[in-house]
Amino acid sequence: MNQRVNSVVNEMLKRGIDHLIISDPSSIDYLINYQNQPGERMYVLLLTANGNHTLFLNRLFYLDHELDLNIVWYSDTDDYVGILASYLQDANCIGIDKFWSAQFLLPLMNQTNDETCFELGSICVDYIRMKKDEKEQQLMRESSQMNDLAIDKVIQLCATGKYTEREVTEKVVDVFRSLGCSGNSFDAIIAYGENCADNHHMGDDTVLKPGDSIIIDMGGAYQGYCSDMTRTVFYKEVSDEKRRVYNLVKKANETAEAMIKPGVKLCDIDKVARDIIAEGGFVAEFNHRLGHFIGRDVHEYGDVSANFDMPVEEGMIFSIEPGVYIQGDFGIRIEDLVLVTKDGCEILNSYTKDLMIIG
Amino acid sequence: MNQRVNSVVNEMLKRGIDHLIISDPSSIDYLINYQNQPGERMYVLLLTANGNHTLFLNRLFYLDHELDLNIVWYSDTDDYVGILASYLQDANCIGIDKFWSAQFLLPLMNQTNDETCFELGSICVDYIRMKKDEKEQQLMRESSQMNDLAIDKVIQLCATGKYTEREVTEKVVDVFRSLGCSGNSFDAIIAYGENCADNHHMGDDTVLKPGDSIIIDMGGAYQGYCSDMTRTVFYKEVSDEKRRVYNLVKKANETAEAMIKPGVKLCDIDKVARDIIAEGGFVAEFNHRLGHFIGRDVHEYGDVSANFDMPVEEGMIFSIEPGVYIQGDFGIRIEDLVLVTKDGCEILNSYTKDLMIIG
Repeated sequence: MNQRVNSVVNEMLKRGIDHLIISDPSSIDYLINYQNQPGERMYVLLLTANGNHTLFLNRLFYLDHELDLNIVWYSDTDDYVGILASYLQDANCIGIDKFWSAQFLLPLMNQTNDETCFELGSICVDYIRMKKDEKEQQLMRESSQMNDLAIDKVIQLCATGKYTEREVTEKVVDVFRSLGCSGNSFDAIIAYGENCADNHHMGDDTVLKPGDSIIIDMGGAYQGYCSDMTRTVFYKEVSDEKRRVYNLVKKANETAEAMIKPGVKLCDIDKVARDIIAEGGFVAEFNHRLGHFIGRDVHEYGDVSANFDMPVEEGMIFSIEPGVYIQGDFGIRIEDLVLVTKDGCEILNSYTKDLMIIG
Repeated sequence: MNQRVNSVVNEMLKRGIDHLIISDPSSIDYLINYQNQPGERMYVLLLTANGNHTLFLNRLFYLDHELDLNIVWYSDTDDYVGILASYLQDANCIGIDKFWSAQFLLPLMNQTNDETCFELGSICVDYIRMKKDEKEQQLMRESSQMNDLAIDKVIQLCATGKYTEREVTEKVVDVFRSLGCSGNSFDAIIAYGENCADNHHMGDDTVLKPGDSIIIDMGGAYQGYCSDMTRTVFYKEVSDEKRRVYNLVKKANETAEAMIKPGVKLCDIDKVARDIIAEGGFVAEFNHRLGHFIGRDVHEYGDVSANFDMPVEEGMIFSIEPGVYIQGDFGIRIEDLVLVTKDGCEILNSYTKDLMIIG
């Protein structure tokens, strides 16, 4: 078996997990180089501490190349959870993928020995996935370069003042495709004015008004690796207060990025940015983590937040995205991706963070 | 509380579930008219048999209108599973949403009394959602009418012979939007020739060759309700064998649709179609269920398959989509949506099922 699988098995041994159920299609692809979109059907890679690995596949799934492990095929009308359970009768501690759903987990728990322990086990894979190898780092660099090019085109679209949020949002995918990306890595967020204060705003028929903040949060998928960047620009003019908040968020972004190097804790990076924004007068107005890990998925395991006291390591890639959101008025967010290097970090986005007034 | 919630509570009482955790955003929207995209964050509507209902929201979620139930807000850095657990200390039997993921379920199980039972409980909602009310039926009718119009445009694109599978796939979303849909209800499947034999084929650079079968499986989202239809057409010519298989699949589709009325079991509808295809010589080549339920989601709870002996009821809407797939050669699938009426069914798709040779 390959090095990645071996690394996961080592993590299992460290944590006392003898059987690990992996269901996340990204993790399975990462480990055994097989892409699949299982939809609602059961899809499991079962790794065991003794190296006997098995992939459970619905007969509807398409296997386009040979895989170097046991394959168990099942049909929709089979008792597929029972089939999986038959491979777990001698398990002591079963690690479960954090994304595995109750429709499989609860029936499985009813079909194993009472002494079997179940615990979250996807950390065994996630911890390996957090640290990108050189090939992955290069793809992440290129993916973010595409995003630097793409966001400039989107800002130019906004600058015309002609398009609603929804119209710009719908054009983003074509911008990425024109650059050789397969599409968006997530639905772009294009928000004008007070809509910027809603972190989950869906682009609607809102049009630009002079003085509006414009949040552009977008990313593309390039050769299977995701980019993700946010810039906030202003339409035609900017008030003193918005300029002050912009510079505060920019300072939080830049100060956090400047401190990143191996050994620094994720929670401490979050705290530095949060303290800067708090000193500027905003606490509840910065209502999310400072950042998230990213790679094959736009949100991968790991937060830059008070929840994670893990020290950063070389090869980790995550976002740094402080924000301030003033309900009913405006919002500012500035986000880059950073790659932790041997003695610092490389900021993967180079698009300007200077305050821009467009249109 | 509204009628839908009351119906779910009645189902809970019937099944001995005193607390029900609902996490599926479609179900929550269906029940309390609140749309949210929680991403990886915990999102739970907790219904209780005694009528004390609570919604657990991350502070990042946006509440654009008042809701008539208790709301508990939490932050990313709170012990949100612990907060939820504090509402479940007197629970005897907790019903769990089939889609709820292990990252929440396993920690919750560690924070409740040992005697508390956990079982799959989403059937309490799913059973209500299976039967569409009159307003939903009308939206599903209109959504499928859009699909009838859209597929004709897509067939005309294919008929030019100019476009790769990927190019046609990418145009489908614009076709739906031009008709007033918000977009696709799922990524359209456009497959040419031998790619038709792979049920999960992703459109690639394949171009059309004379004699190819073309599977077009597509649906749009119209006012929150999904359409889903498949037609198979042929490019420039069709062999006798492909014609024979086409007519066999068409017969299976039409015979199954003709037998649908209240009281007929889902498994029996599947069997009739499957037997027709088996008589034509194909067993393993029809490798999926005959159909699935649909509504707000393109795949909702309920299969037309040997797994479901439930009798159909007025108001149910599901697909009838027999297929035959000959690996390395071609594939045929014909799919309509049907609405069960008082004494029969209404076929929601009217686009022709006559054999079409295009180009």
